[in-house]
Parts: sequence; C-alpha cells; structure tokens
Amino acid sequence: MSSKIVIETPAIAKIGNKFAELGRQKKVVVLYDKNTAGLFEKSISEQLEKDGFIFHNLIVPASEASKSFRMAYRLYGEMLEREVDRSWSVVAVGGGVVGDLGGFIAASFMRGVPVVQVPTTLLAMTDSAIGGKVAINHPMGKNMIGFFHEPVLILIDPNYLRTLPNREIFGGLAEVLKYALILDGSFLDFMEDNFQEISTLVSPYIDEAVKRSVNAKVKVVTEDFRETTGLRAILNFGHTFGHSLEKLSNYKALRHGEAVLVGMACATQLSMKIGNISSEDAERICAMIQKFPYPKRLIKKYFLDVAPETIIENMRSDKKKEGKHIRFALLKRIGNAYLHREEIAKEDIIFAIEAAKPLFA
Amino acid sequence: MSSKIVIETPAIAKIGNKFAELGRQKKVVVLYDKNTAGLFEKSISEQLEKDGFIFHNLIVPASEASKSFRMAYRLYGEMLEREVDRSWSVVAVGGGVVGDLGGFIAASFMRGVPVVQVPTTLLAMTDSAIGGKVAINHPMGKNMIGFFHEPVLILIDPNYLRTLPNREIFGGLAEVLKYALILDGSFLDFMEDNFQEISTLVSPYIDEAVKRSVNAKVKVVTEDFRETTGLRAILNFGHTFGHSLEKLSNYKALRHGEAVLVGMACATQLSMKIGNISSEDAERICAMIQKFPYPKRLIKKYFLDVAPETIIENMRSDKKKEGKHIRFALLKRIGNAYLHREEIAKEDIIFAIEAAKPLFA
Ligand SMILES: NC(=O)c1ccc[n+]([C@@H]2O[C@H](COP(=O)([O-])OP(=O)(O)OC[C@H]3O[C@@H](n4cnc5c(N)ncnc54)[C@H](O)[C@@H]3O)[C@@H](O)[C@H]2O)c1
Ligand SMILES: NC(=O)c1ccc[n+]([C@@H]2O[C@H](COP(=O)([O-])OP(=O)(O)OC[C@H]3O[C@@H](n4cnc5c(N)ncnc54)[C@H](O)[C@@H]3O)[C@@H](O)[C@H]2O)c1
Ligand SMILES: [Zn+2]
Ligand SMILES: [Zn+2]
Repeated sequence: MSSKIVIETPAIAKIGNKFAELGRQKKVVVLYDKNTAGLFEKSISEQLEKDGFIFHNLIVPASEASKSFRMAYRLYGEMLEREVDRSWSVVAVGGGVVGDLGGFIAASFMRGVPVVQVPTTLLAMTDSAIGGKVAINHPMGKNMIGFFHEPVLILIDPNYLRTLPNREIFGGLAEVLKYALILDGSFLDFMEDNFQEISTLVSPYIDEAVKRSVNAKVKVVTEDFRETTGLRAILNFGHTFGHSLEKLSNYKALRHGEAVLVGMACATQLSMKIGNISSEDAERICAMIQKFPYPKRLIKKYFLDVAPETIIENMRSDKKKEGKHIRFALLKRIGNAYLHREEIAKEDIIFAIEAAKPLFA
Repeated sequence: MSSKIVIETPAIAKIGNKFAELGRQKKVVVLYDKNTAGLFEKSISEQLEKDGFIFHNLIVPASEASKSFRMAYRLYGEMLEREVDRSWSVVAVGGGVVGDLGGFIAASFMRGVPVVQVPTTLLAMTDSAIGGKVAINHPMGKNMIGFFHEPVLILIDPNYLRTLPNREIFGGLAEVLKYALILDGSFLDFMEDNFQEISTLVSPYIDEAVKRSVNAKVKVVTEDFRETTGLRAILNFGHTFGHSLEKLSNYKALRHGEAVLVGMACATQLSMKIGNISSEDAERICAMIQKFPYPKRLIKKYFLDVAPETIIENMRSDKKKEGKHIRFALLKRIGNAYLHREEIAKEDIIFAIEAAKPLFA
C-alpha cells in the first residue's frame, strides 16, 4: 500500500505542503455530502485558499443513493464544465459514501486522477478510506461497479468525529472491535479498559483507537492488496452474517456497523462451534459486544424474529462467495482470525445464529 | 506492458490453452457489436464450446454511441443477472468501440475482471487493443471516462480483416503509416514497396504490417505506460490536427484515420517549418500520403474549406493539452518523432495547414 496517512488534529492544515511533497499541482475538486459540507466546507475552503489552491466544491445528497451512476455522471459533467483535467486531484470529505464516490470518479475521470481521502466518520477513518476499494452501486447489487484506486493521501483528524451522531460512532466502533478481534489481542484489552472514554471521544483514547485500527487495516491491505492470498478476507469477520441482516433490512433500516456487531456475535459462536476459540475468549467477546447500544426494535425485526434458514439464504448472493459454499472468516483466538475454506454444515451455522440471539434479547 | 499477444491465423483456436496458461477459469462474457456478432459469433462460440467454456454473448449496436454510460450500465445488469462474478473474464470481439467498451466494463465490474481483446479492425489490431487504455464517452467529451486496464491476452488474427470495408482498412493504414513515420524508418521502405499488397490484404504483407505496427505500439507503451515521460505522446503524431477535423465533423462524417491522415500531412509540414526534417523526407511522406484514397467531398468540407484559425481553435479543447499552449508531436526525421514542448507560433501552424492543403486538392 502506498498511500501516505496522516493522523492528527488538524490534519487539513498540512494539505498545501503535502501536495508540494507529492509533486501535485494545487488544483482540487472537493467532494462533500450535504452534511459534511455544512460542517467542514468553510474551514477547509479557508485552508485551501490560504495554501493557494484553485478548487471547486461539489456537493451530493447525504445518502447511500449518491453512490450511483447517475451521480457519477453528473459530477463528471460538472468537472468537465469547470475544465478540470488530469493535472487536478479529487479530495473526498465525508463518510464512506463520499469516499467511495469520490474515489470512483477520481479513478475513472480521464483515466484516473489522484484522490485524497479526508474521512469524517469513524467507519471511514478506520476502514473505507484505507485500501483503495472504491465503488458505486448497481440496482442489482451494492458496490458492484468499482475499482482499486489507492488514495495518494489520507488525512485523518479524529476531531471531525465530534459532530457525528452516536449511532454512527457505535457503528464505526463495531469495526474497531473487529480489528481487535481479528488481529490485535492487546487492542481488546485497551478497549475493555477504556470503552467509556473511546465511545465518548475522549482524547487520547479515541485517537489511540483510530490509530490502532488504521494500523490493522494497513497491515492486512499491504499484505494482500488485491484479495488474492485470502488474508484480506479476514476483514470479513462478522460480515457474512452481517450482510445478510443488512440485505434483509434492504440496506436501509440497519446501519452496516450494527449488522456487523450482530454478525460478529454469530461468527464468534461459529468459531467456538467449529472448535477454534475457547469459551473464555468467546465470553470476553460477548461481554464486549454487550457494551454496545443497538436499535432494539430493528435487531428484533431483522435478527431475533428471522429464521436462521432465512439468514443463511440471504448470505448466498453475497458477492464474496466463490465456488459453491460460503466461506467464513473465523477466530482461532482473540487477535487471530483466518479464512475457513472448508464447507461448514448448515446445522452448525444455525446453531451459531441461535446461540448469538440471547445477547440481543 | 504485461499483455500476452498472439498474432496468427486462426488466433482464437488457442483460447482454451491460453486460459489454462493464465490460470483463469473457462467462464467468459463475450462482447460483440451487431456486425462482428454476425461475422464471427458462430465460429467463436463453436471454439468456446469445443474448449469447454461456459459463456454468455452480449451484443451492442455497431456505433460509437455504444461507448456510453447507459450501455455499460445495461451490460453490468446483464452480467449480474447471469451471475457473472470475479472468476469470469470478458472477451471483446470487434473494433475499437467494442474493445474500449469491453475493457471498460471489465475494469469496473466488481472492481475488475480480466479482459481479452480480439480486435477485428486494422485500427484495433494495431492500436486500440494494445496498451490498456479503455474508455467510454461523456456528452461533453470523447473518452472522458476511463481507465488503464491492460488486457491479459490479445488475440490478433489478420484474417478477420477480410470482411472489413475499404474505408476502415485505409483508416487503419493511416495509423500503420504513423508507426513507420514516428518509430521505424525501414517500415516506411516496406510500405512504399508493398503498398498495393498491404492495402489489399495480401499475405504475408498485411501480416508483416500488422506485426511491425504492434511491435511499435508495444515499444512505446512499455516504455511509458502511464504517459509520464512524454514518449507515449509521440503516438499523437498527426492527431492534434486530426482531432480538430474530427471535432469539426462532429466525430461522425470523417473516420478517425482519415482525419489523422490529413493531420500527418499538416504535422509533416510543421516539422519541416520548425526546422527538423529535410524536404526530401517530407516529400517521401507526402508521396506516401497521396497513395491513400480519401473521401474528397468530406475533406473539402472539413479541411480545405476551413480557415486555419478555425482548425487551430478546435485543437484547443483537446484533452491532451496541458498548461497553456498546444504541444505537437513532430518528426526529426523519418522514423524518429519527439514531443515538441515549446510553444509554436500561430503563423507557423497556419503555414503548415496551408502547405498541406494542396495534397488533398
Ligand atoms: N471502500 C471500502 O473499503 C468500504 C468499506 C466499508 C464501507 N464502505 C462503504 O462506506 C459507506 C458507509 O460509510 P459511512 O458509514 O461512513 O456512511 P456515510 O458516508 O453515509 O456517513 C454516515 C452519515 O454521517 C454523516 N457524517 C459524516 N461525517 C460526519 C461528521 N463528522 N459529523 C456529522 N455527520 C457526519 C454523513 O453525512 C451521513 O449522513 C457504504 O456505502 C459502504 O459501502 C466502503
Ligand atoms: N483504447 C485506445 O487506445 C484507442 C485508440 C484508438 C482508438 N480508440 C477508439 O476506437 C474506436 C474506433 O475503433 P474502430 O476504428 O475499430 O471502429 P469500430 O469499432 O466502430 O469499427 C468500425 C466498423 O467496422 C465494423 N467491423 C469491425 N470488425 C469488422 C470486420 N472484421 N469486418 C467487417 N466489419 C467490421 C464495426 O462493426 C464498425 O461498424 C473509437 O471509439 C476510438 O475512440 C481507442
Ligand atoms: Zn464493514
Ligand atoms: Zn489514432
């Protein structure tokens, strides 16, 4: 992975120097969604002016629906009208939606211009902004159209999180917990000791949590950039179950992180069933999961009240499947995940789902 | 450049082995346009069946308009419906339109699946299928949305040219001549000696012309894949003038190669004016250009009758411009082109255009 990553407050203050270091001209298209424009456009524009940038701001609705062909097309048109050419760069300021869309148009505009990611959600800071996956949706499937387009620069300022709604924070924290579980046992200790501080964004706890998550993601992506060795697949821990719930809720009601939280509970149970982790480890994980608030009514509707068979059915069209059976990322122990390549008996999956339900009852 | 290139008749017969060598599964989406489907679909499908492929044929209208977002979108939908996933590959059978569109959807489908190019026009065999540039058009500009996506395999069968209309053959031959002029002086000797045989597709002359062109393109692309050193820019010899004519004719009336033929006449005159090539060299080039048939009425309308200033005006929005002035690929001598980075006086450009007109009068 070749992206330069800066984690500090304020991160954007460095942008002029950073462009000089990268040898890029100070000409940028800055993509926001309505919310991030309202929150950050003023200060970022001021910084860009101060640093002598030529820039155009583009603003899209704050919605997953913005990750569409129609929107990309509209943005290309605005860029062409403003005579943006290959000497420009794209800066994406927002959550995963803006990051994915901004990366997509950067990857495809005139055969590719650089993208700078300025993530403003916890999920984007720790996950979507890192690793170069960019995509838009197709009516027939999420993230179906996309590329690998690594950002030249990722500016992470944990201070941007202060305005983030609680639900988005805990959604992001579910992914943070995932990194601890799959890669970094001591990170789970840290989360257990400081969950209150992290989740209320107290410094330096939140910064530390962001840093350790970024390091974990970078490690995996570096070692398996194009998803060839299987390592990157461990990032899907909790996601195979999670995606099924998201799908059942039409990718609307449940936040991704909430579905992943439930998914990690199921995957932990499955790991235990398949005979990997100890029940002590599993109990620690469950205790941590139970510290997360979650939308009770929705989890009831899309998890507790759903037959395990239906959940399994909805995993099947997940694009991560390859060959005939579904492969799960499972835990050997805390801090150590692997891709289970063999088929897992349906009864075991059902068992894991049923075993996870009490945590959310 | 990492594409494997096979030039022989029949080239498609090797496709089963080639997929095995590449370690790719025998599952392909085959993209044709209406014409190439009519001509080649039957024999290619037979070969694929014989070699044990699973395949789906997709057919688009034979028109530049197929290089559109709408068409890409339709094709993604058809691929998703047929449960195409990342274990599949795309095979593009046609001219530059099918090659660019097929490469585009391959590059972007589920973050990229391999593309195999099976070029069926002379232009595609010698130019568009090689080098990994793929793109679709935007109403505001040709090839504005695209990527670098190198084909894993390029199967070139000069026999496919036998059904190609004469106008397409000479259009492609203009690009063939370009390679001789910019890179390979002895290739011009060969063309002078065998123009009749080459242009009537006599073996082994046409095969030799294709091979030498392919080698020239490969050489340039290998040395400057992402257009950073300026070498790839010499491929634009004749194209800055040419694009202006294409634009004046709304990218419809004139074929690309016809515009480039006229453009090369202008660029040769400009090379002489700037003081590079000898008048002997220039005369040889002009004599060769005059062997090409061209659509008299159209060249009159979009070249002879157009004020040089208008031609220059229409170069300006060419996306290859960078900075303020237009840069031309010019000749030092036959077989040796370079990118002229300094500004060229408008009077000199006007002079070159006027000096080229008599060739087409
Ligand atoms: N590319 C990848 O590798 C990758 C990985 C995971 C997820 N994703 C994608 O990420 C997307 C989800 O990202 P997300 O969870 O960041 O959602 P999001 O981008 O929709 O952001 C969530 C909400 O928070 C708002 N917001 C953003 N920053 C804010 C701030 N600082 N203060 C207040 N509000 C703020 C947004 O406007 C939005 O309403 C999905 O489309 C998913 O497919 C991509
Ligand atoms: N990617 C690149 O590097 C690159 C380079 C140059 C041009 N291009 C693109 O290539 C396109 C032009 O390509 P083209 O000139 O091949 O045009 P094309 O693809 O439109 O083909 C020309 C015509 O010939 C027909 N045809 C194709 N093969 C045939 C055959 N064997 N027999 C009879 N008819 C046949 C086609 O159906 C079409 O009607 C443009 O869109 C241009 O932008 C791309
Ligand atoms: Zn996730
Ligand atoms: Zn050309």
